[in-house]
Amino acid sequence: MSRSVFYLSDRTGITAETLAHSLLTQFEGIAFTNESCPYLDSVEKAHEIVTRINAAASRDGLRPLLFSTLIDPAVREVVATSDGLLIDFFDTFIQPLESELGVRSSHAAGRSHGLGNYGAYKARIDAVNFALGADDGLNSHHYPQADIILLGVSRTGKTPSCLYFALQYGILAANYPLTEDDFAKPGLPTVLRPFRQKLFGLTIRPDRLREIRQERRPDSRYASLAQCESEIRAASALMRAEGIVTIDTSTMSVEEIVTTILHQTKLHRRLYG
Amino acid sequence: MSRSVFYLSDRTGITAETLAHSLLTQFEGIAFTNESCPYLDSVEKAHEIVTRINAAASRDGLRPLLFSTLIDPAVREVVATSDGLLIDFFDTFIQPLESELGVRSSHAAGRSHGLGNYGAYKARIDAVNFALGADDGLNSHHYPQADIILLGVSRTGKTPSCLYFALQYGILAANYPLTEDDFAKPGLPTVLRPFRQKLFGLTIRPDRLREIRQERRPDSRYASLAQCESEIRAASALMRAEGIVTIDTSTMSVEEIVTTILHQTKLHRRLYG
Repeated sequence: MSRSVFYLSDRTGITAETLAHSLLTQFEGIAFTNESCPYLDSVEKAHEIVTRINAAASRDGLRPLLFSTLIDPAVREVVATSDGLLIDFFDTFIQPLESELGVRSSHAAGRSHGLGNYGAYKARIDAVNFALGADDGLNSHHYPQADIILLGVSRTGKTPSCLYFALQYGILAANYPLTEDDFAKPGLPTVLRPFRQKLFGLTIRPDRLREIRQERRPDSRYASLAQCESEIRAASALMRAEGIVTIDTSTMSVEEIVTTILHQTKLHRRLYG
Repeated sequence: MSRSVFYLSDRTGITAETLAHSLLTQFEGIAFTNESCPYLDSVEKAHEIVTRINAAASRDGLRPLLFSTLIDPAVREVVATSDGLLIDFFDTFIQPLESELGVRSSHAAGRSHGLGNYGAYKARIDAVNFALGADDGLNSHHYPQADIILLGVSRTGKTPSCLYFALQYGILAANYPLTEDDFAKPGLPTVLRPFRQKLFGLTIRPDRLREIRQERRPDSRYASLAQCESEIRAASALMRAEGIVTIDTSTMSVEEIVTTILHQTKLHRRLYG
């Protein structure tokens, strides 16, 4: 038996899904069937959705959950007639904010994940291009522009973290993979030395690294526990000797890696929210 | 004069920021000063934050806005004593959900942007690696694994869209840049022909393309209006002749491009929310 969940939005639906996901992860053991309804921007579409909601209600024998960021009053009115439980994000919070701020809200749809101002859009695209160009030790001549340079052995989460820095915060993040060649020479790799203030280390438990590498190149020397241990030992010693702050990513999601680094470094975001 | 806004979270703060951003974009013309307070996981930290909130309140002469996804009751209790206006996302919606679902929520912090189950984590990282490996026409031998292949001339938004598909939804997205070489030959590029069902076209207005290319390579032939017009004309003719659905990305954000494609293609998500 599964409970139907509908995500109702005038635009992308990302806010409605984020909210719902946060709340529903608090209810383990309940099965949910998800249906996204983005770009719900006319009364006709609203009537279609109501038909689908009501069909789900009688099929499941359970009231569907409706997570809504709908703004258009005409669309909202139609949706409110359905058999679902309406969790209305704007309705709940806009009124208290209007009283506190002393102004009426604009009631304009789709501001939060739209193009917004062109400067912010460009900052983000530039950051994505930067991350791609300065991934995996490429183009170290871009390091003077970098906001941060992540450092660590292969498969510690550097690349997805750099992309997340770019897409979510517009931050220019480069990354440099530490390899045996680097460990053979004393001190930091030469290309990194002028940028010591920008360096942040990622480390990981050897058994977890082995697991990740094993999926990529099964039964290789690269994936062996001995190799993982030796690389991590050398990288940790180097970063400690050079006074580079590191975090252990073994049990962290990409979002946790990035927000922890932001929190620790107080790095300036080029985009907010 | 600026209103202080605090984002209070047990974990990453991403949900609190996303939700707050959605609400605050409805209030144009008001200046906000943002302060993120992630990893707020002890009563001591809560007391520190209350001090900062109260300092902001007396500095601004305005009540700070507090957007909270805090779960820990002890931490919430301390925060509730501050001089801010508390907008509490969990408190507001968890209770109605508990009654509707007939169970108590787990009150566990950090579920929505944490590592979650390892399968979902791996799907996402694999998708990021896929997008990087199959960017810009690279590795067409990966196309059999692709969920979708974006097609369009240079600078129509293919790369950031593929990365967003990967990070947000775990979808395996490749992209192929249409160039003059492709237009010189009849029909679809040979490597794409077996994958017609996976193709989705991005197009753009010539003046917008010119603007974007101009920033990348100022005053080049590549950025000239004539070149942009000619490439777009040829690409549109090709995609129309081949029956490939396209969208115009001229005024779309990356989120809008991706959610519109998801909505139109009914592509299966490997990750939800």
